[in-house]
Amino acid sequence: MNRYIQVGDNTNITEERQKATFDTEVLGSIIYEGQERLNRRREIAKYVEEHQDLHDPKPRAFMTRLEAIENASRKIIALKKHAEQAINASDPSENYLFQSFVMGGEGHPIALHDLLTAPVLLANCDDEQLDLWLPKALNYELNATYAQTELGHGTNLKDLETTATYDTKTEEFILNSPTITSLKWWPGNLGKSCDHVVLQAQLYIHGKCYGAHLFWVQIRDLNTHKPLPGITVGDIGPKFGMNTNDNGFLKFDHVKIPRRHMMMKHAQVDPDGTYHAPIHAKLGYSSMLYLRSILLGLFAMNLAQSAAVAIRYSVIRRQGEIVPGEGEVKILDYQTQQHRLLPQLARAFAFLATGKFIREMCFKVMQDIRSGEVGLLADLHAISCGLKATCSFQMALGIEQCRMACGGHGYSLASGLPQLYSLAVGGCTYEGENMVMLLQLARYLMKVANDVRNGGPKEEPSEIVQYYFRPAKSTTCLIDQAYDTNHQYVLDTFEHASKRATLAAYDKLQGLKQKGLSNEQAWNETAVELCKASRAHCRTFIARMFVEQVQQIADLPVKNVMNDLLELYLFYEITEAATTLMEDGYMRGQQLRFARHKVYSLLEKIRPNAVSLVDSFDFTDRQLESVLGRRDGHVYENLLAWAQSSPLNKDDIDCIYSFFTNDLGNFMLIFYRYQYSL
Amino acid sequence: MNRYIQVGDNTNITEERQKATFDTEVLGSIIYEGQERLNRRREIAKYVEEHQDLHDPKPRAFMTRLEAIENASRKIIALKKHAEQAINASDPSENYLFQSFVMGGEGHPIALHDLLTAPVLLANCDDEQLDLWLPKALNYELNATYAQTELGHGTNLKDLETTATYDTKTEEFILNSPTITSLKWWPGNLGKSCDHVVLQAQLYIHGKCYGAHLFWVQIRDLNTHKPLPGITVGDIGPKFGMNTNDNGFLKFDHVKIPRRHMMMKHAQVDPDGTYHAPIHAKLGYSSMLYLRSILLGLFAMNLAQSAAVAIRYSVIRRQGEIVPGEGEVKILDYQTQQHRLLPQLARAFAFLATGKFIREMCFKVMQDIRSGEVGLLADLHAISCGLKATCSFQMALGIEQCRMACGGHGYSLASGLPQLYSLAVGGCTYEGENMVMLLQLARYLMKVANDVRNGGPKEEPSEIVQYYFRPAKSTTCLIDQAYDTNHQYVLDTFEHASKRATLAAYDKLQGLKQKGLSNEQAWNETAVELCKASRAHCRTFIARMFVEQVQQIADLPVKNVMNDLLELYLFYEITEAATTLMEDGYMRGQQLRFARHKVYSLLEKIRPNAVSLVDSFDFTDRQLESVLGRRDGHVYENLLAWAQSSPLNKDDIDCIYSFFTNDLGNFMLIFYRYQYSL
Repeated sequence: MNRYIQVGDNTNITEERQKATFDTEVLGSIIYEGQERLNRRREIAKYVEEHQDLHDPKPRAFMTRLEAIENASRKIIALKKHAEQAINASDPSENYLFQSFVMGGEGHPIALHDLLTAPVLLANCDDEQLDLWLPKALNYELNATYAQTELGHGTNLKDLETTATYDTKTEEFILNSPTITSLKWWPGNLGKSCDHVVLQAQLYIHGKCYGAHLFWVQIRDLNTHKPLPGITVGDIGPKFGMNTNDNGFLKFDHVKIPRRHMMMKHAQVDPDGTYHAPIHAKLGYSSMLYLRSILLGLFAMNLAQSAAVAIRYSVIRRQGEIVPGEGEVKILDYQTQQHRLLPQLARAFAFLATGKFIREMCFKVMQDIRSGEVGLLADLHAISCGLKATCSFQMALGIEQCRMACGGHGYSLASGLPQLYSLAVGGCTYEGENMVMLLQLARYLMKVANDVRNGGPKEEPSEIVQYYFRPAKSTTCLIDQAYDTNHQYVLDTFEHASKRATLAAYDKLQGLKQKGLSNEQAWNETAVELCKASRAHCRTFIARMFVEQVQQIADLPVKNVMNDLLELYLFYEITEAATTLMEDGYMRGQQLRFARHKVYSLLEKIRPNAVSLVDSFDFTDRQLESVLGRRDGHVYENLLAWAQSSPLNKDDIDCIYSFFTNDLGNFMLIFYRYQYSL
Repeated sequence: MNRYIQVGDNTNITEERQKATFDTEVLGSIIYEGQERLNRRREIAKYVEEHQDLHDPKPRAFMTRLEAIENASRKIIALKKHAEQAINASDPSENYLFQSFVMGGEGHPIALHDLLTAPVLLANCDDEQLDLWLPKALNYELNATYAQTELGHGTNLKDLETTATYDTKTEEFILNSPTITSLKWWPGNLGKSCDHVVLQAQLYIHGKCYGAHLFWVQIRDLNTHKPLPGITVGDIGPKFGMNTNDNGFLKFDHVKIPRRHMMMKHAQVDPDGTYHAPIHAKLGYSSMLYLRSILLGLFAMNLAQSAAVAIRYSVIRRQGEIVPGEGEVKILDYQTQQHRLLPQLARAFAFLATGKFIREMCFKVMQDIRSGEVGLLADLHAISCGLKATCSFQMALGIEQCRMACGGHGYSLASGLPQLYSLAVGGCTYEGENMVMLLQLARYLMKVANDVRNGGPKEEPSEIVQYYFRPAKSTTCLIDQAYDTNHQYVLDTFEHASKRATLAAYDKLQGLKQKGLSNEQAWNETAVELCKASRAHCRTFIARMFVEQVQQIADLPVKNVMNDLLELYLFYEITEAATTLMEDGYMRGQQLRFARHKVYSLLEKIRPNAVSLVDSFDFTDRQLESVLGRRDGHVYENLLAWAQSSPLNKDDIDCIYSFFTNDLGNFMLIFYRYQYSL
């Protein structure tokens, strides 16, 4: 039963909803982890809907960047005013939800402050420092961001160039940007909004470098908002997406700050310059982990959102005939359209299950750390790096497939999909560039492979990589006509593929070293193969997460349709991984053809439930920001209304003619002028 | 010898250029089809460089849509004034070049008029009509566009809903838009600029529909530029790219036009309503063909442009160490970076060779048509559809790979790559949506397959598909250590793969029909496999074009480096096509590993020439519009200059504080206001 049918909807979409073989409410409560959360989601959405000051006055596609920033500033103030009434403000997930409903994903002037300042202060300041700075941060008496990356340097702390040189005479640090490449570059909200930064800089004492440390630095006057002396700061300019975030640059010209503005929870510098090293290194680890686990859920939702838009539009749009004389068909009836869209939806569910598992594992690891255990930390770090890269890239490809599947209208900003893509694809780059992330996982996998090649694990391996040490269940692939429903054969197949890829990379690496290459050279010459191994391991992991999630579903109709999506996911991935599987004869052509056949028949089987599946995500029209993806299916009349309200039509621009003559003859050309500039 | 070295350049890029093993000038003259053309290209670029009224006053990334349109209007007028002096105005290729240097690819108010009006009038009007309308069009006394697609309908003429109903009493056509989906939607420059349209509408006489015909319709008053009575017209709103083009919508409410405003070269309607059918159908065919052949060259250039930006930046950017203690390396030294970028460059060259062949074939076919031969028309139509889809998609993926390979800076509009992508990816959708295009080629291939399965061709097959009828040279793949340099083994391999894919799709299609499915149903259930067959055939075709082009190169050093790129292209494609090749045992794992090994060693071999290869495209900095891709390599200081000149920094926006209190405590939030609005 589809709960999203309303009177007055486009009948093309209503008839789709009537075909649902399951209750969208049951699936919705699985997606949002409980009926209670789904209900709260709706209540918060309703609250937003009822308060006009939380809305955009016009589609954001029609705003200039400055208008959009001004609008975001206005809304975030309104949001803070409404928070007490709208949500349980002490619940982070309700805060997140409320903020995402109102603000979207493009950023606002206190986005980084809200996200990072308090956790970073708590993790790095001693008690005295906390007493001084934390209340002001929490009360919004200041607006801070985290300044790490530089114009010429990414996330590698070792390579940062900004210096903080301790002067024992004045008991101050002198902050300096010695080169053009040392300018801080990219920190969110740094450009125009922030007045403080948490600064990563190389600590120098008596001419010796102690590596990157954190400092608390005021950069603007709190009254005039002007940069303080010695500081140059500004916005880095427009980007592909996130343009309501004023990512900024920052240059220090010998700026002095007191000694106690170094964050001293872990490392300390005494007045005389004596340095006390931190006891534990890399304590920021777990918060990066947590951020990555959140990202997986975000990627899943981005992909689901694009699938929702494209699938809904594909039952409104009609084109061409399949049965002659029966009129134009819905484009979702085309196999090619199903093949473009439904695997994206399946992947969204797979990423969601994976993100949930990682998030929960992350909580567990953080608890373990508190009780002194760090056993799972390295495992979780490695897999979360690989998953971030794998899922963000598949998400980006998937959103574009959804967009292109909407034809010309997908190219219009009215579809919402170009904006969704250019925002979401940032996920391939931020929080660790994808190639770097894959190689991080590969480094961990090479340790596993070393154990495999050298007589087994030294200690009980983490659950995530146990399969590397299990004897192969079969040396040939068992997928065929006799395929049964427990999916174990497919999981075995993926495990085989990632074992192969991992060991092949390991053997190549060892071979190159034996030829006399250094570790680093051998690593570089194996890098493409190493990335392949990481992707294969991630595929195996995601597949297992999805299988386990579907197995836990109690409601039979939902379990059935989710099982269809799961099978589509698995067989689609098999066709994608086919090369690795056939390379060693594990899979044969006949089995590949069976997998393809399964994909095609699953597409047909899922198709009647497609709209109900995306409905279950309970996206509001305000969230989707898409004329094509409207719940009510009234696409065409609203495309016209959207166009008619766009700036070129609204602002009543006059076109005046400019006649002139040159040697070629008479030219008549049109010259635009805005009315106000005439 | 690299001719692009200049004193004062970033030494990181100069040392790359010094490694060139070939003369960039020789390769440049191959790319631009002759030294004379390369020289003219430079002269025109120099002319543009010397005339400030042909420049943008600021980077287009900093303009609002309205500013950009106004700027484009200004520039196109300046360009027309300069044309006589700057170029040989009667040479279409010089016009194209001049226009692309000055205007870029985002469009301007007479873009469609320049491109289409004259050819469409010439192809469809009788002499009397031509005498009336053509001179005015050529003299820019009017500005017209071509109005075909509708809100609910793509390129399929049969489904258009706009009607032109002949009224014998008044001897007029009544133009009408009967439904919301019948609104004309997308025509370029229709929104605000044009005053005339070439209209596709269903012709009705005495209640009978005669199908889509072309009409010449004035839509705006030539003095006031206001829409004429019964006409609603406007801009369709902002898009992913092409935002200086005012794509528009158009609605007719029973608008009357004289009988003689139907274009009457082919079909005629007499005053009494007697209809005379055209003798030849589909006469617009060859101009669509020509447009697609131009597009292939454009796709090649887009891809080369993104490769130029990313490869140049990759020798400026340093990150991480490979040999410990030797300092950070250029990121192009990483195998993963080479593997991302160099295959894109190889594909750009492959597309260029293919586009050139298709363009020449197109000229030949058009000549043939004039002398009554239409033999090659269907072949050329089919392959050009498939190539458009294959090349546009690979281009889009490739541009994004180049963009992501630039890390965070690739996400900034300063890189030029987001804008290049959002413009270029339109090529996957316009001029025939890619899936539709692949299926057009598949329809042709199924005829070929039918001949193969039924005793050979009925007549001498076109050169393009002859390989389908040749006996297989081998039943196993011959690529291995003994690989020689004539590439025939690889071409055989591709031919094998596309034969297999084509015949597999054909057999599936026949099988489904024998099971009782209608032609259309069977076609739909085979559609994904049909697309695969089309792609495989295109790969075969492109590979052959590239092989033949490289074989023709006389200059040995250029031939050597191009041969490296060709091999990279071929082996990269083999790894991509591996599944199809292994499915039937044609290729074995050992051979696949050989192909991969070849790819890695070719990456290493090409790397020293990478910068010189992209230099040979002779892109000007003005063309690239990319701080990362600057010829002189001075990236970082210019990123800062770019950022500092961006609107948020330039317009001296004040940030004022807005203090307010709510139950949570004191909030301090920043509120933006533009200076002028205070």
